Amino acid sequence: MPLTGALLIGQKAVLHPQTFNAVNATTGEPLETAFSCATSEDVNNACQLADEAFDTFRTLLPDSRARFLDDIADAIEAIGQPLLDRAHAETGLPLARLTGERGRTMGQLRMFAQELRAGRCFDIRIDPALPDRTPMPRPDLRQIRIGIGPVAVFGASNFPLAFSVAGGDTASAFAAGCPVVVKAHPAHPGTSELVGRAIQTAVKKNGLPDGTFSLLGGPDHELGAALVRHPAIMAVGYTGSRAGGLALSHVAAARPVPVPVYAEMSSINPVYLLPDALENTAEKLGSAFVGSLTMGAGQFCTNPGLILALAAPALDRFQNSTQKALESAPAPTMLTSGIHAAYDAGVAALAERSGVALLGRGPHGDASGCQAAVFTTDAESFMKDPFMQHEIFGSCSLIVSCPDLKTLQALTRSLEGQLTATLHLENGDIAMARTLIPLLERKVGRILANAWPTGVEVCAAMVHGGPFPATTDPRSTSVGTAAMERFLRPVCYQDLPDDLLPTGLRRNVSP
Amino acid sequence: MPLTGALLIGQKAVLHPQTFNAVNATTGEPLETAFSCATSEDVNNACQLADEAFDTFRTLLPDSRARFLDDIADAIEAIGQPLLDRAHAETGLPLARLTGERGRTMGQLRMFAQELRAGRCFDIRIDPALPDRTPMPRPDLRQIRIGIGPVAVFGASNFPLAFSVAGGDTASAFAAGCPVVVKAHPAHPGTSELVGRAIQTAVKKNGLPDGTFSLLGGPDHELGAALVRHPAIMAVGYTGSRAGGLALSHVAAARPVPVPVYAEMSSINPVYLLPDALENTAEKLGSAFVGSLTMGAGQFCTNPGLILALAAPALDRFQNSTQKALESAPAPTMLTSGIHAAYDAGVAALAERSGVALLGRGPHGDASGCQAAVFTTDAESFMKDPFMQHEIFGSCSLIVSCPDLKTLQALTRSLEGQLTATLHLENGDIAMARTLIPLLERKVGRILANAWPTGVEVCAAMVHGGPFPATTDPRSTSVGTAAMERFLRPVCYQDLPDDLLPTGLRRNVSP
Repeated sequence: MPLTGALLIGQKAVLHPQTFNAVNATTGEPLETAFSCATSEDVNNACQLADEAFDTFRTLLPDSRARFLDDIADAIEAIGQPLLDRAHAETGLPLARLTGERGRTMGQLRMFAQELRAGRCFDIRIDPALPDRTPMPRPDLRQIRIGIGPVAVFGASNFPLAFSVAGGDTASAFAAGCPVVVKAHPAHPGTSELVGRAIQTAVKKNGLPDGTFSLLGGPDHELGAALVRHPAIMAVGYTGSRAGGLALSHVAAARPVPVPVYAEMSSINPVYLLPDALENTAEKLGSAFVGSLTMGAGQFCTNPGLILALAAPALDRFQNSTQKALESAPAPTMLTSGIHAAYDAGVAALAERSGVALLGRGPHGDASGCQAAVFTTDAESFMKDPFMQHEIFGSCSLIVSCPDLKTLQALTRSLEGQLTATLHLENGDIAMARTLIPLLERKVGRILANAWPTGVEVCAAMVHGGPFPATTDPRSTSVGTAAMERFLRPVCYQDLPDDLLPTGLRRNVSP
Repeated sequence: MPLTGALLIGQKAVLHPQTFNAVNATTGEPLETAFSCATSEDVNNACQLADEAFDTFRTLLPDSRARFLDDIADAIEAIGQPLLDRAHAETGLPLARLTGERGRTMGQLRMFAQELRAGRCFDIRIDPALPDRTPMPRPDLRQIRIGIGPVAVFGASNFPLAFSVAGGDTASAFAAGCPVVVKAHPAHPGTSELVGRAIQTAVKKNGLPDGTFSLLGGPDHELGAALVRHPAIMAVGYTGSRAGGLALSHVAAARPVPVPVYAEMSSINPVYLLPDALENTAEKLGSAFVGSLTMGAGQFCTNPGLILALAAPALDRFQNSTQKALESAPAPTMLTSGIHAAYDAGVAALAERSGVALLGRGPHGDASGCQAAVFTTDAESFMKDPFMQHEIFGSCSLIVSCPDLKTLQALTRSLEGQLTATLHLENGDIAMARTLIPLLERKVGRILANAWPTGVEVCAAMVHGGPFPATTDPRSTSVGTAAMERFLRPVCYQDLPDDLLPTGLRRNVSP
C-alpha cells in the first residue's frame, strides 16, 4: 500500500494542489510523498459526514463496535514493517520502541473492545416504577450513557502510533460511540495516512457509515481551530504543548455552544528522593534518573523534569552519580527540528535563571540529537521563579535542594498541577511521605513509589491526567478504560415503552 | 432560634454595618432582620477556611461523612415550622409545597449518606502487580476518586430549600468530600440563615473543621464573581438564569487555573403531542397542560414552555381545552418582583413576535400573581426566530403547529439543548416517536412519555441536566446520586505501601 498523500474524508481519498512534505527526523532531508493540505471545505465535509454517521454508529450494539475496534487493530498489524519504517523515518524513534508502541496501540484498541463487551462502561441505572408509592407514584426511570457526538482528535508528535490517528483518544471515542475526525500531526503524515487507511478499511469491512472516521492534515494551525469551531464537533482530544492546548480550549469555549476540550499539556513530574532512600541508594538513583531522563530523548509527558530532596551529603553523592551517568548518556534523535530548537532554547534560558547552576550535560550527539542537561538550584530560588516550573520538552531536569521538610512542603504547595509525582522511599521515610501525600493528591493524577514516571500502564486503574495545567480537565484520564468517560453523557428515559428504549435499557430483551 | 442577619464563616457569625432586607413576596413589604452584606474579606476568609478544612474532610471515612449528612437533615427538620413560615414569607411559595420541598431536601441528604455507605461512588479500580509479566512486570495500580476541592454553591431562587443552602449541590459536594461556601440567594436570606445554622450545628456536632461550611450573602453580583475567582474554589454549582450562569462560567474560565462550573441555566422543555394521543385525549391533555404550566407559577426548570404537534382538528380541540382551563387557572405569587417584571416583559415581547398569536391568558390575580399566558405560532415562524426559544421564566408557553412530520423533525433539530423532552403517545404513535428519539437524545437529558416534565425524582437514574444551554456541562446531572461525580476526580497510586494509601485502597484492612 504505497503512500498517496491524500486526505481521507469518509471513504474518499482527497488530493489538493497545495501540499507539504514530511522530513526525515535524523537527516533533516524531506521525505518522498507530497501530502495534501486540508481546506476549510474539507473540515466541513468531514464534520458533516461525522454528524450524519453519529446516530448509526452510537446505536450499534456494543459487540459490533468492539468488532470494529478489533478489526482496526488487525488492520494496523497487517501493514507490517512499512508502518514501522515510515514512523522511524518521520520521528527518528528507534524501531524497537516503535514496535512496542504499535503493540500498545493495538492493545488499547482491543482493551476498549473488551470493555464494550463487558458492558459496565455505560453505567446503566434503573429505578423501576413504584405505582403504589404515596403520596405520588414513582415513574420508571432508566439511565444510560451515550456518545457525546463527533470528536476531534489531535495526533501527538511524540507517540506517532499510541497517541495519534488510532491512539487512545480515537479508540476511546470510537468505544463511546463517537465518530472521529483526526487532525494528523504534521511531523508524521505518512504514518498517519497508513494508520488512517487501516481505519478506513475497518469502517468499510464493518459496513459502518462513511463519516465514522476522517483524517485531515496540514501544517497550518488554523486547520485545528477550524475543526474545533465546527458545530458538529462535540468534544476534543489533544496531547501536545501548553500553548496549543490553551489555544484550542479558548476556541472551544468561545463557540456559540461550548464543548469540552481534553488537552494533556505539560508536566514536570516531580520526583522526591526521601532521606533514607537517598542515603542508601544515592548512586543507583543517579544512574536510574539519567536513564529515565534520556530515554526517548526525554520526549515523554511523564519525563522527570524536577528532582526534590533535602540537603545532605547523600544528595551530593546522587548528583555525582548523575554527573557521571550523563557522561555516557545517549543523545537520541529528537522528533523534529522545531522541537530540537525549542529544547536548546529552553536549556539556554534555564541556565540564565538566577540561582541555577549547571550540574552536567550529556554528549552532544549528532545534529538531531538531544544533549541531556541537568541543573541544580535551591528551594528559595525555585519558589521565587515560575519559569523554573515550565516544562522543557526533552532530556532536561532540575535538582532542587531544600534546607528542611517545611520548605519541601512549601515548595510542593507552590507547584502547578502535574501528571505524576514520585516518591523514592524506604521504611524510615514513611512518616515524611505521609506529610507529602495529601499535598500531592491535590497536585497530581498519579503518585508512584520507588520507580520512574516514564512508563504508563494501559489498564483500568491508570490515571494519565491531573490538575491544570497538566490537563484542562482534572476529572479525566486519557489512558486506561476510564478514558471512554470523556466522550459519554447520561440520558434518562422516563416511562418509555420498550420499543423506544435503547437496547441496553429494555425490560424484555427479545430473543 | 431567632434570625440575626449574620454571615456564617466557619463557626463564626459575622455582622457588618452594610445590610439588606428580604421582601415579603406576597405583599412587597420588607421583612424584619437586616442581613449583613459579605465583603471581599469575608470571601477570602471563608475560602481560606474551606481550603484548610479540605484535607481533613475529604479523608474522613465515608461513614463519618454519611453521619454528617444525616445530622444536617435532622437539624433542618428540628427547625420546624419557623423554617417553613420564613420560606413562605420570603418566596410566596405555599406551605404545602415548602413542606414537600423540605422533605425532598432531607431525602437528598440521606440519599447521599446511603450512597457513601454503599461505597460504589468512589469507583475503586485495582490492577494488582504482575511481577512475572514479560517483557516488563506490571506495577500495582490502584485508583480512587477524591474530592475536587472546596466548592462554591449558588442558592437558586425557585427552590429555597432543595436547590439552596443545603440543597442538592451542597449535599453532593459534601458527599464527595468537598467543603462548601454557599452564596445565598438574596431573595431568601432568612431561610438561608436558618438552614446555614443547621449545617453549622452539624459541623460542630461531628467535630469537623470549621471551614467545612460557610454561608455568604448580599445582593451584589460582584460577590458571586469574587467567590468564583478565589483560588481555593475548585468547582462551582449554580442553578439560575442563563445570563448569570454564563457570567460565572466566563469568570471561572478566565482564572489562572480554570475550574468547572456546573450551571443549570435555561430550558423550554418541548412537549410533543403525537397524533393518536392528541386525537384520543386532546381535551384531557389541554387541562393537564395548564395544570403543569401554572403549578408553582411556572417557576420550574422543567416547565413546559413549548408544545409541538402536527396540524389537525384535534390540535384545535387541545387548544380549546387549554383556553378553557386557562380561564380558571391559578395566578400564584411569584418569587420576587424582579422575576415578576421579567415575566411580564417576556410575555409582552413574545406577543410582538411575527407569527405569534395569543391563545389565552389566565386570571390576573393579585399584584404579585403570575398571569398565565399561552401563545400559538407555526413551525416556519418558530424556526426563523431564535427569540421564541428563549425561556420566559413563569407560566408562559408557546404551541407550535407543524404541517408535517418532516417539519416537526427539522424543528426538533433546530432546538437548543434542553433538560427534558416529553412525548405524549399511544401505540399508533410509536413509529413516529421512533424517528424523533434519536433527535431528542442529542438535545436533552431526560425523555418522558405520557407525563409532564415538572416533577424531578431524586434517584440513581435521574438526569437533571442536558446539552448547552440547558447546562454548561452535558456530562453531568445536578439531581440524583450521580450528581456527586461532578465534584470528584481520579487519583492513581502506583506501588505505594499500604501505610500511604487511602483507606479504601489498602491491601490489608486493619481490624
